[in-house]
Amino acid sequence: MFKIPATWMRGGTSKCWVFEWDSLQVPGKTVDEVLLRLFGSPDNRQIDGVGGGTSTTSKAVILSRSVSEDADVDYTFAQVGIDEQRVDWGSNCGNCSAVVAPYAIERGWVTPGPETTAVRTLNTNTNQLILQKVDTPGGELGHSGSQMIPGVPFPGMPVGMGFFDPAGRTTGKLFPTGEPQDKVTFDGRQVPATFIDAGAPVVIVEAEAVGLTGHETAAEIDTRTELLVHLDDTRRDAAVQMGLAATRADAERAIPKLALVAKADDGDEADLVVRMLSMGRLHPALAITGSVALTMAAQHEGTVASNLISSDVSAGVTMRTPAGLVQTWAETREGTPVVGALRSARRLADAELLLPDTW
Amino acid sequence: MFKIPATWMRGGTSKCWVFEWDSLQVPGKTVDEVLLRLFGSPDNRQIDGVGGGTSTTSKAVILSRSVSEDADVDYTFAQVGIDEQRVDWGSNCGNCSAVVAPYAIERGWVTPGPETTAVRTLNTNTNQLILQKVDTPGGELGHSGSQMIPGVPFPGMPVGMGFFDPAGRTTGKLFPTGEPQDKVTFDGRQVPATFIDAGAPVVIVEAEAVGLTGHETAAEIDTRTELLVHLDDTRRDAAVQMGLAATRADAERAIPKLALVAKADDGDEADLVVRMLSMGRLHPALAITGSVALTMAAQHEGTVASNLISSDVSAGVTMRTPAGLVQTWAETREGTPVVGALRSARRLADAELLLPDTW
Repeated sequence: MFKIPATWMRGGTSKCWVFEWDSLQVPGKTVDEVLLRLFGSPDNRQIDGVGGGTSTTSKAVILSRSVSEDADVDYTFAQVGIDEQRVDWGSNCGNCSAVVAPYAIERGWVTPGPETTAVRTLNTNTNQLILQKVDTPGGELGHSGSQMIPGVPFPGMPVGMGFFDPAGRTTGKLFPTGEPQDKVTFDGRQVPATFIDAGAPVVIVEAEAVGLTGHETAAEIDTRTELLVHLDDTRRDAAVQMGLAATRADAERAIPKLALVAKADDGDEADLVVRMLSMGRLHPALAITGSVALTMAAQHEGTVASNLISSDVSAGVTMRTPAGLVQTWAETREGTPVVGALRSARRLADAELLLPDTW
Repeated sequence: MFKIPATWMRGGTSKCWVFEWDSLQVPGKTVDEVLLRLFGSPDNRQIDGVGGGTSTTSKAVILSRSVSEDADVDYTFAQVGIDEQRVDWGSNCGNCSAVVAPYAIERGWVTPGPETTAVRTLNTNTNQLILQKVDTPGGELGHSGSQMIPGVPFPGMPVGMGFFDPAGRTTGKLFPTGEPQDKVTFDGRQVPATFIDAGAPVVIVEAEAVGLTGHETAAEIDTRTELLVHLDDTRRDAAVQMGLAATRADAERAIPKLALVAKADDGDEADLVVRMLSMGRLHPALAITGSVALTMAAQHEGTVASNLISSDVSAGVTMRTPAGLVQTWAETREGTPVVGALRSARRLADAELLLPDTW
């Protein structure tokens, strides 16, 4: 039996198991195999492992001190399959990203400042540099924090995250096809879509174009099997057009993500209404990487998102999600565009996970 | 911030957080408050805690060395509310019970035998003595094990559990009303029911009487909100008739459990088909305490269960559940009736849970 040290942290609206690379080295096994067995996959309940049986609770973050001069910490995100024997390494998770700065400070990799501490983190899935800011009053990491965010009924430590120059981290271009608007297949029809790569690759489709309002709840979407199949096929078509997969069948489950957008109601403080699909289900809030993509789409003329917005979004976008309002900011630092978002994080448990000798 | 030592174990088809009583003592807080906050309740996703957001993954077992001469370990089961700010202490969980012997041996409370080790465990919720047997080849607890059970796709350590004289542990009587069959309300009608207290209090109703076949899947039951409301009302009516609650509103969510039973198909090796409702949803397999109740009901003439059985069940009952076959055994040891079942268990993680200073 192997004992594998790990820390369980909530990052944003996700639960993430945090590992260091060395801990996942098991003789004769790949990291994918070790993660899948630790999480109890494949099994839709993950009952014999530490996974939570849902896309937001079957996530791992693997860290090391950075080898680059530009960063303090390198981290890699893994979406661990639930009923599939498969780990997706193709995209970052903005929620789990929020655990990196608190972990690095706790671990002593970064010396805390007297009031706040900035940690330079490099996400290796997307080669994205994210500057994270946390409060460290008196040079110490506050353990509890009072930051509330939509989708989490308890407070946590606030983590401000600025995505540096987020365009094209996966495909090389903000708009992988070169155009702010293309067409994608939905249920045999061609509907307008924006393919965008910022934070993570996302395909944006107007909710109305697929027969929805954009205001649907999880129950209203997740019970419609046929709709979910069509939407996943749309996502796979986008994967091919974005150069992320050779065929629809090759497309990864977690990349690109699919965002359905709608006009905000009159008088709503939101600029845009968003429903995000993740791993074949409605995301309870909004993937933060997706919020970066939507912010940049909202700021570029001719995209499916900007066509629905009448307000000024040059400094950031307020999005209405199933869990409430999500706000981003956008600025330029030393000539580099930065898109930012605020999350909260909390350490839930320090653990040693037990891996059977054989399986 | 408090650090609370805990072990995460799979017991049968459940995941259970295992604590020792001393660890849960937090100044100014009750044990209920501490458990609820650790688990992240109330919140239907338990995203800020160690609960799994489902009834089978929001469970705690709290142990101590026994103060009784009849037992080696005392343990108490807690069903931790998910979206309710409430802990149910009213019943035992047979799945989580299976973690007790392995934990006690690992902890050094019981000296392992050269081949197998019998651990005398006392469940304090029901005052039920359960003799647990685990393999200890060479005087050591095997860590991995090869025991498969329905509902769990990975092997674990086999744990044989014999419930000593299980009748009447909660209410004082095997049949709390004195009769093997009564009537209970379902959707305004009176339908036949058996109220039985063995392992745990259970109300047994024929599936046909509530318009079902007994062969339904989780998806076919859990999506029928109106049916679930009626069935919960039936369960609450039973709680009152069994003397477990003064009014329907006072009935606990976890007690009694509701079992729907049906005749086995011709040629099926099962004696009985069972669908168990737990915390308002279909149980993915069968609560083991419920399997003890169903075994004793099957063996007593005139119950809703025995009326559906044509085979000889004096030595045990084979039940068809959504996850497959569950087999019990029944015997008499030194004049005492014993009902037994086999589970598997695996230690998933050793942990320190982090409790915020205030909440």
